[in-house]
Amino acid sequence: MKIIKGGVTAAKGFKACGIHCGIKKKKKDLAIIYSEIPAITSALFTINKVKAEPLILSQKQLMKNSKFNAIIANSGNANACTGKQGMANALKTVDIAAKELNAEKKSILIASTGMIGKQLQIDKIISGIKTAVPLLSKNGSSSAASAILTTDTFTKEIAVEIKISGVAVRIGGIAKGSGMIYPNMATMLCFISTDALIDKKALDYVLKTAVDKSFNSITVDGDRSTNDMVSIFANGVAKNKLLTIKSKGLGEFAKGIEFVCIQLAKMIVKDGEGATKFIEIKVSGAKTYADAKKVGFSIANSNLVKCAMFGEDPNWGRVVSAVGNSGIELKLEKIKVYFNNKLIYKNSTPVAGAREKIHKSLTKKEILISVDLGVGDKSSSVWTSDLSYGYVKINAEYN
Amino acid sequence: MKIIKGGVTAAKGFKACGIHCGIKKKKKDLAIIYSEIPAITSALFTINKVKAEPLILSQKQLMKNSKFNAIIANSGNANACTGKQGMANALKTVDIAAKELNAEKKSILIASTGMIGKQLQIDKIISGIKTAVPLLSKNGSSSAASAILTTDTFTKEIAVEIKISGVAVRIGGIAKGSGMIYPNMATMLCFISTDALIDKKALDYVLKTAVDKSFNSITVDGDRSTNDMVSIFANGVAKNKLLTIKSKGLGEFAKGIEFVCIQLAKMIVKDGEGATKFIEIKVSGAKTYADAKKVGFSIANSNLVKCAMFGEDPNWGRVVSAVGNSGIELKLEKIKVYFNNKLIYKNSTPVAGAREKIHKSLTKKEILISVDLGVGDKSSSVWTSDLSYGYVKINAEYN
Repeated sequence: MKIIKGGVTAAKGFKACGIHCGIKKKKKDLAIIYSEIPAITSALFTINKVKAEPLILSQKQLMKNSKFNAIIANSGNANACTGKQGMANALKTVDIAAKELNAEKKSILIASTGMIGKQLQIDKIISGIKTAVPLLSKNGSSSAASAILTTDTFTKEIAVEIKISGVAVRIGGIAKGSGMIYPNMATMLCFISTDALIDKKALDYVLKTAVDKSFNSITVDGDRSTNDMVSIFANGVAKNKLLTIKSKGLGEFAKGIEFVCIQLAKMIVKDGEGATKFIEIKVSGAKTYADAKKVGFSIANSNLVKCAMFGEDPNWGRVVSAVGNSGIELKLEKIKVYFNNKLIYKNSTPVAGAREKIHKSLTKKEILISVDLGVGDKSSSVWTSDLSYGYVKINAEYN
Repeated sequence: MKIIKGGVTAAKGFKACGIHCGIKKKKKDLAIIYSEIPAITSALFTINKVKAEPLILSQKQLMKNSKFNAIIANSGNANACTGKQGMANALKTVDIAAKELNAEKKSILIASTGMIGKQLQIDKIISGIKTAVPLLSKNGSSSAASAILTTDTFTKEIAVEIKISGVAVRIGGIAKGSGMIYPNMATMLCFISTDALIDKKALDYVLKTAVDKSFNSITVDGDRSTNDMVSIFANGVAKNKLLTIKSKGLGEFAKGIEFVCIQLAKMIVKDGEGATKFIEIKVSGAKTYADAKKVGFSIANSNLVKCAMFGEDPNWGRVVSAVGNSGIELKLEKIKVYFNNKLIYKNSTPVAGAREKIHKSLTKKEILISVDLGVGDKSSSVWTSDLSYGYVKINAEYN
């Protein structure tokens, strides 16, 4: 596997572009990702019961069809909590995109991010799509990546090339982060494309597994948005032997997808609102992967742990307390806690002198908190950011 | 029911005191609450799997015995994550207290709050108990309330008198809040006393119900400490007709206990670290009480909602998103959201113009967020504070 340039247009047969259509004041706000050949598509959506209208529509589209040509995504307006008019606007977006792209309506997906509770300026979307389609390009990944941002401070792109039985296959993606801004939450969006030839079942499986280890393993503040979405288009242009759930090459492909997803997920955490630290929480020695992840999230979502990391203090007490709060069965005397690979807690008591030694290493921007539960061989990593004055500022003083 | 003075010593037959024994530099750090007559006792403990040594010991005492004479509580050191020596020190505290109070060892409970991972200065506890016992007094509630504080900024006391079949019965209590300070979490502690004559089963039931509606309905940051404890002593001195689970008068007694618990719980939230707002979240129209409470906590634990309240913005979008994140079954079109009793969201869309009208009312220190789920007749209230710069400061810059 090698990292290559090109983001979401690195794979053969994909074009993209991002433009300013007028929802935001100046910045780009409309992106199209396009595959000339209808591509096998999988997608995962927020588990928040309150779902935005474009998500509801895209979910319906995916239930009726498995091959898609394009996804249209706008930023600046989430088209969430907008009722019937919101759905009508979502449908219009699909209609006009199908027409302009000369594709079937059933082959279009849509996504939105930005302000919620405000009707989409559909005229701007319509004229925007008309402007954007002729601009679709093999070099359009960066402009598309820009056009989906909200409070993000940088674009998020990655691409890799892997070999499947000697055939070069490319996977690339763009994402935006979980920044939250008035009057509402923004969203985690990720669009992946690949020229791999793969069937729907295998693609669903690979995406779900990768998302679990990446986007479902990060947290900035524990909130889930109304608009979160991850999708993958696989157009088969690479002409590898068809990948199915039983193919030998599926493992290599899954590794590629997982790498792309983890890289994009990490970028999202690094760009978390007010983040001054990037924190990996590695939980090992668990009986099950689910246990490891529960403990990881209990630590990652603890405001006390996050404040301590902002304050650069190896506060093992808050970590141990978060482990105890995770709800899983524990053998307390077996728990070990490390900061940046240095042991600070074992046998139910702190290690003498460790705190002073570790303190200095926490001034670095990246921090590793490791917890060994000592009762099994399963492990999991979760990534998060610290809780800073900046986070409170962004989320309290937005208006 | 009338509110009276006297806190935890308002009920007949109780004495208390609080002194400085030397664990803290200057402030009071050792409290004793004492009943001359062994009192029927119930207690509830943290559900964090990591429990402090004094809690483990008190839990054991309560499994072996139902009548107690006293509780000894120190602040400044939580005696948590202290292993065998910590347990030996907890046992020594019980021994010396029993001796000085001329009571049986099995009739003594203990609690600790403060720094974790540091051995208790047992010599100071021993000499402290010797100093404190002769100071036990009918007027000792306030000094005991002071001696259990950590980062709290004010003492928390309340007492009421109720009538049970014409007989005056008193209930009083003291509490400390969920302040968290280096190197670790402090704790929620609450000690209640009553002169009611009641059997163990009825007392257990009443306490559990009241704690669910009070201490288990508040959140400052969603973390649970290693040392949380609520206990109640009932010494029977009021000579009312014995209250059992079937008594007609039990409802009146339960109301009194619930009132005392809710008042103390609200004081804890008002004294939450960095709190600038006191927020009540009232969820109605739920199918079950459990559903209402889940939704309430989902809102109360949302950093985004808490930051918006600090910023005095009626951000209904974050509230609706938190409702969607609660995990319960919802009828989205039935959800209504109010700030300070003014409707801002219904029929899946915001109410035009409401935001501007409501904005000003959020400058008050107390905020009511009401959510009507529209699918049943059960309701629940949860109380929380906002997320401010002060919270981050206290929890990041403690060292």
